[in-house]
Amino acid sequence: MLVEPRTPYLRVDLTRLRHNIRRTAERAAAAGVALRPHVKTHKCLEIARLQLDAGAVGITVATVGEAETFVRAGFDDVFIAFPLWLDDLRAGRLRDLTAEATVTIGIDSPAGAAEAGRHLGAHGARALVEVDSGHHRSGVEPREAGQVADAAVRAGLDVRGAFTFPGHSYAPDALVSAAEDESRALTVAAASLRTAGVEPEVLSGGSTPSLVSADTELLTELRPGVYVFGDAQQWELGTVDPEDIALACRATVVSHAGGRLVLDSGSKALGADRAAYATGFGRLPGHPDARIVLLSEHHAVADLGGADLPPIGSQVDVVPNHVCNAVNLAEHLFAEDAGDVWAWPVAARGQNS
Amino acid sequence: MLVEPRTPYLRVDLTRLRHNIRRTAERAAAAGVALRPHVKTHKCLEIARLQLDAGAVGITVATVGEAETFVRAGFDDVFIAFPLWLDDLRAGRLRDLTAEATVTIGIDSPAGAAEAGRHLGAHGARALVEVDSGHHRSGVEPREAGQVADAAVRAGLDVRGAFTFPGHSYAPDALVSAAEDESRALTVAAASLRTAGVEPEVLSGGSTPSLVSADTELLTELRPGVYVFGDAQQWELGTVDPEDIALACRATVVSHAGGRLVLDSGSKALGADRAAYATGFGRLPGHPDARIVLLSEHHAVADLGGADLPPIGSQVDVVPNHVCNAVNLAEHLFAEDAGDVWAWPVAARGQNS
Repeated sequence: MLVEPRTPYLRVDLTRLRHNIRRTAERAAAAGVALRPHVKTHKCLEIARLQLDAGAVGITVATVGEAETFVRAGFDDVFIAFPLWLDDLRAGRLRDLTAEATVTIGIDSPAGAAEAGRHLGAHGARALVEVDSGHHRSGVEPREAGQVADAAVRAGLDVRGAFTFPGHSYAPDALVSAAEDESRALTVAAASLRTAGVEPEVLSGGSTPSLVSADTELLTELRPGVYVFGDAQQWELGTVDPEDIALACRATVVSHAGGRLVLDSGSKALGADRAAYATGFGRLPGHPDARIVLLSEHHAVADLGGADLPPIGSQVDVVPNHVCNAVNLAEHLFAEDAGDVWAWPVAARGQNS
Repeated sequence: MLVEPRTPYLRVDLTRLRHNIRRTAERAAAAGVALRPHVKTHKCLEIARLQLDAGAVGITVATVGEAETFVRAGFDDVFIAFPLWLDDLRAGRLRDLTAEATVTIGIDSPAGAAEAGRHLGAHGARALVEVDSGHHRSGVEPREAGQVADAAVRAGLDVRGAFTFPGHSYAPDALVSAAEDESRALTVAAASLRTAGVEPEVLSGGSTPSLVSADTELLTELRPGVYVFGDAQQWELGTVDPEDIALACRATVVSHAGGRLVLDSGSKALGADRAAYATGFGRLPGHPDARIVLLSEHHAVADLGGADLPPIGSQVDVVPNHVCNAVNLAEHLFAEDAGDVWAWPVAARGQNS
């Protein structure tokens, strides 16, 4: 190992990671649905290879920059699940990628589709129409999918179907209903695409919370990301067993100020995410009742509810709320397996463009 | 410029930056108090040099890694405002730094002070005792400052005084009261230090919100960070004029889904901070009534309250809630001045250890 871990750093439990990857791959295979994991969660070539080895059909990314990182490392089937705006620079980068790999882009407006087609139509670029299934982020109304597809086809794109992200599954008691919304939205989108003359061969969905409830009779593809690690959000949503969480931030106890545990794992290591349903800024695996109650850039303050405090100078693990943003802050993940440690680069860290 | 900006990227308005640096330096000079800016906000050598040129006595950092970045670039007076735990590795790095620069560390427990002294006592290392003035993060009770100082002196450290961070100033209507708490805490801490035989020559405080209310009769030093840029938190606290905010994230409009503005500046560009008092996940300078109402890793959704939406493909600026965490996500800041653009490296990005 060329890089030594120094707190705060991110540890990956390889046994748990492999278990999580295998279990979801087996479920997808048993349901007869393709798995195309979102690699924005880990941004790590080694983990994406484990996912492909377990049967994933390709990968999902969020940006052209992430696509570049993975295509250059040999990944040959990439879906950019984002309504890209292709200015000249971004279009040129995408053209280079389409020469090396099968690249599919997201579109969610006639304007965006026309611009993408203008740049890429002559290059056989594939596209999926994004529809909004209830998260109300990007994506058109499902019944308008045909309009976007029509603009895309006219501009020369190869429209393969539709996708959605049921991100409103990130709420207590919404896991099943979000999956139902996803199914309804993709049903309507498929019908709308057919009116535009596009027979959808891909209907893609999936978020980690809604995964086990996804309608695999309808969906052809699932794109979960967080399932490889789990995090405190999934723990609090009840969608991961804490014993299966495969990533934690190793932190040093630097103070007992105020009778609480002060750790060196601040928001620049854990990320500052705190969803409305979250009970704190992170969780401690060894202390299920503890919460990170105060988080600043370089301090995490944990209330252990009266339990004995680990001594100053000792190290503890913290599970970040949102693992994707924690990983994006690190240069390396330290993968541990039976006493061995590997420093895996976060190869696509910061590739936001 | 060797690096081309691509959205989402961070722009710095150099005129505003220089104005903010100069104004705070002039206020400190007029009050006869030393200014030691916290460079964790910008992590950028060029900006720290502007601060020294304007009269700062040295810099404040949060980690040994940040100190290394700045000392290696020639900065020779650095305060690490954090209760460091000095294991062998970190102590060795600190010893190397003390050979090149005047380095002062924070201590807030007899145990931490003893360990620091064991490693550094023979090297003339300086220390300030951290006291809690009401933020309840790290720092001992002010009346216990003498106990920590006593342990430190016995271990061979050169204790120069006390410091506090009145971070509870980050709340509406707390700006003045937090400064009053700061003054009280440092008064008590000074008396406690004297009982331990330490005459405090440094009483250091300061946060950006409480800055103009700081007790400069008592305090010898101020350590604000955010004042160089301002951000949406300061805007909402009323501690910066929006016309003085010197950093924004330039974003591309990628969709009008749901009649809202969907931008490519997600939490991996802006940071995910949302304080309890924040009205959204970021603000738009050109649209004071607008709010980022939904933020995910690569999407920011802005509600413009019925105003005309800038077209898909156009670019807009977003002011991040917490500029320190936004900067830490970027490789470069793009500094703009009268049509020229410089790519300034975020030299200490990710130096959390």
